[in-house]
Amino acid sequence: MTDISRYVDTHLEEAISQLRDYVALPTVSAQRQAIAETAQFVRKLLESVGATAEVLPKEEPGNPVVVGELPGDSSRTLLLYNHYDVQPPEPFELWTAPPFELRRDGDFLYGRGISDNKGHLVSRLLAIRAFQEAHGGRLPVTIKFLVEGDEEIGSPKLEEFVQQHRQRLAADVCLHEGGGVNATGRPVVSLGVKGILAVQLRVRTAVRDSHSSLGVTVPNAAWRLVWALASLKDPDERIRIPGFYDAARPPTEQEEAFLRELPHEEEKLKENLQLRDFVCGVRGYDYNRRFVFEPTCTINGLSSGYEGPGMKTVLPSEATAKLDFRLVPDQEPADIADKVRRHLAQEGFDDIEVFAAEGEYPARSAADHPFVELVRRTAREVYGQEPVTYPNGAGTQPLHPMMSLLGVPMASAGIGYPDGRAHAPDENIRLSDFVLGTKHVAAIIEGLAEG
Amino acid sequence: MTDISRYVDTHLEEAISQLRDYVALPTVSAQRQAIAETAQFVRKLLESVGATAEVLPKEEPGNPVVVGELPGDSSRTLLLYNHYDVQPPEPFELWTAPPFELRRDGDFLYGRGISDNKGHLVSRLLAIRAFQEAHGGRLPVTIKFLVEGDEEIGSPKLEEFVQQHRQRLAADVCLHEGGGVNATGRPVVSLGVKGILAVQLRVRTAVRDSHSSLGVTVPNAAWRLVWALASLKDPDERIRIPGFYDAARPPTEQEEAFLRELPHEEEKLKENLQLRDFVCGVRGYDYNRRFVFEPTCTINGLSSGYEGPGMKTVLPSEATAKLDFRLVPDQEPADIADKVRRHLAQEGFDDIEVFAAEGEYPARSAADHPFVELVRRTAREVYGQEPVTYPNGAGTQPLHPMMSLLGVPMASAGIGYPDGRAHAPDENIRLSDFVLGTKHVAAIIEGLAEG
Repeated sequence: MTDISRYVDTHLEEAISQLRDYVALPTVSAQRQAIAETAQFVRKLLESVGATAEVLPKEEPGNPVVVGELPGDSSRTLLLYNHYDVQPPEPFELWTAPPFELRRDGDFLYGRGISDNKGHLVSRLLAIRAFQEAHGGRLPVTIKFLVEGDEEIGSPKLEEFVQQHRQRLAADVCLHEGGGVNATGRPVVSLGVKGILAVQLRVRTAVRDSHSSLGVTVPNAAWRLVWALASLKDPDERIRIPGFYDAARPPTEQEEAFLRELPHEEEKLKENLQLRDFVCGVRGYDYNRRFVFEPTCTINGLSSGYEGPGMKTVLPSEATAKLDFRLVPDQEPADIADKVRRHLAQEGFDDIEVFAAEGEYPARSAADHPFVELVRRTAREVYGQEPVTYPNGAGTQPLHPMMSLLGVPMASAGIGYPDGRAHAPDENIRLSDFVLGTKHVAAIIEGLAEG
Repeated sequence: MTDISRYVDTHLEEAISQLRDYVALPTVSAQRQAIAETAQFVRKLLESVGATAEVLPKEEPGNPVVVGELPGDSSRTLLLYNHYDVQPPEPFELWTAPPFELRRDGDFLYGRGISDNKGHLVSRLLAIRAFQEAHGGRLPVTIKFLVEGDEEIGSPKLEEFVQQHRQRLAADVCLHEGGGVNATGRPVVSLGVKGILAVQLRVRTAVRDSHSSLGVTVPNAAWRLVWALASLKDPDERIRIPGFYDAARPPTEQEEAFLRELPHEEEKLKENLQLRDFVCGVRGYDYNRRFVFEPTCTINGLSSGYEGPGMKTVLPSEATAKLDFRLVPDQEPADIADKVRRHLAQEGFDDIEVFAAEGEYPARSAADHPFVELVRRTAREVYGQEPVTYPNGAGTQPLHPMMSLLGVPMASAGIGYPDGRAHAPDENIRLSDFVLGTKHVAAIIEGLAEG
């Protein structure tokens, strides 16, 4: 690793220069901006380390995917999953400098997408170059690339794409889009994600609003919605939808072990948000247990009747709620949507319309897979600190297609840190994290050669 | 009554001309428009029938009240309660013609306030003139006037005003602001009103919104609000606040008799609003029973988190609801507000802030008072139809100060009809109703002489 490390340390400027060009492309998938040109840019990036690369279409409405391959000396294959699209930069006025111009300030690099997820791909390519330089241009394992262009809008049709190209993408192990360190600088290894199901509830009780004096006899859409919502989850946070928890996979012994070792960091969040308490009063181990293993039912928005200042004696005829469910393995979005519908009908809420989006599956790698141990060991060596290992995070990323269709274990390794402001103004990374994350990826490649 | 009737029939144009000038004053209390000049205009109207009249201040923030007196030949006194302010005319574009220009179209007169409540005062003055003409200028009873200027914004400080002037306003009986016919043309006699308590609930769980993946541990303001609301009323419409129904006065035998005689008119409303059903599936007698005797708890508005199109994976830190309670005698607004607060605290919702407005008291006259029988008998004679008698309506008007502080029974008699569009564009009355309502008031004056 000495040569590799030296190469990374001495070729940072090259990487920053690549990153400057990459960030300059305003690849906002939600606004369909700069998609085609960024896909071509990524193809050339992959070719710059010697990979064969190609831009392949996804089914409508998916954006093109850049697929690449760099042959190695063994039959073992590492798949790198990344995405080239970014979140919208708005609100512009909260950025210190223009979002699509890379800005360097001491240890910090700023720009939209620099953390999520363009910086990770550039770091991984630097790791590969460093390895190649140290080994006469050779790689011990084949490296494949899957860089998609619409992760920020839910990766439409990725499942179908991976299915269609499963031979070409076949691999033994996979690094998912990113990773990095926690608030105290310990490397974080995440082995999976929760899934998500977005649901909108709507009720119309009449063709128009009424005077509130009619509340005595005319059905009120806001009440119907409130009662329907209250039937979904109790104040003790137990979700009441029959069968909701059935498919939730219980933690394995190794997952329990990782859980017990997780640091207790929730007090800082409590302070930061000025909470009275967490739900169910959880702390420490119980907090982490909920964080990792509990699915959720979250109201994202409520709307009905008069919402302006003062009072209006109106009886609303329409009410809507937006919710999302974060799902744990092996819950399935479509199954949960069915159960929500069935539950509401059974509880007498057949006047509530349920609109469910397609959703994303949860995914969790086997915690006792040797690849997990490799990622943890190399993290320990590179960072000089014990890694923090999450069986899965609380958020959602499209890991299920790779994990399920390709059958690969996935783990995180990357250059992020908690204040990187992904999705927010002044998105940033620290160069020191970039260096360590890059060395970690190189160490994983080296470790795969030994494995 | 023959002379009186003839006078009314032959002096309609004079009344319409008065009404044209009255409607031309844009007395929008919510916008503090034309208050002082309308009060002076009303003073002159009262003086035009020979009354002494004066504009008196109410306590801040109340608008001035016009008080008048017209002596009669007996010690019996009839108080006429009216208001000179009107609802805002907006939206202007939905009016067929300018709202403050009286427009006549066949049997119809249009203009803001023509039904609520300016037309009623002009009709009552015509009734008085007709009586005077038929009786050599004399009246058998003293008539007093109380015309306030902020009924449309909740009659602030009316209670205090009536208390302060209780000697001057002392009376035996009172006609409240209006009245008229139902959809089939039967005269409606209403003996009271429900009260109202407006409440706003607000909950803040954190200083800012969070990513919805944190729904697993971070409290959600929308959920807190939903659960708090669901604790107030069950889907079977039973209000769960302890003691809420305690002060609700049970119907008397006479009230029950009136209730049984009420027509069953709810099917038309059901069709009009395209309802699946009324709450609790009520029909006929049960519908009318709820309408008259049940207090309500109505959500007027809900607001939390993301309410725009599509989804947003946000966990809201703030949520608000607006509610109103319609109260029946002898529920008291302040007592109900206390009970709401206590209930929420007891149910574990001490994170919910409760903002309660002052509210208005319910009021219901004794159904067996001779004045009620007089108003019903004269209605039967003038309209040639059996009157429909409501122990109280479902809405709210400021009758409590007069009924409680002056100790007078109150009943309705007036010129309105169900499609008069009070508070809405193209507010209107029918001249035929104006004639009958005027004759009814004159007949009541005549009846009081006999009583």
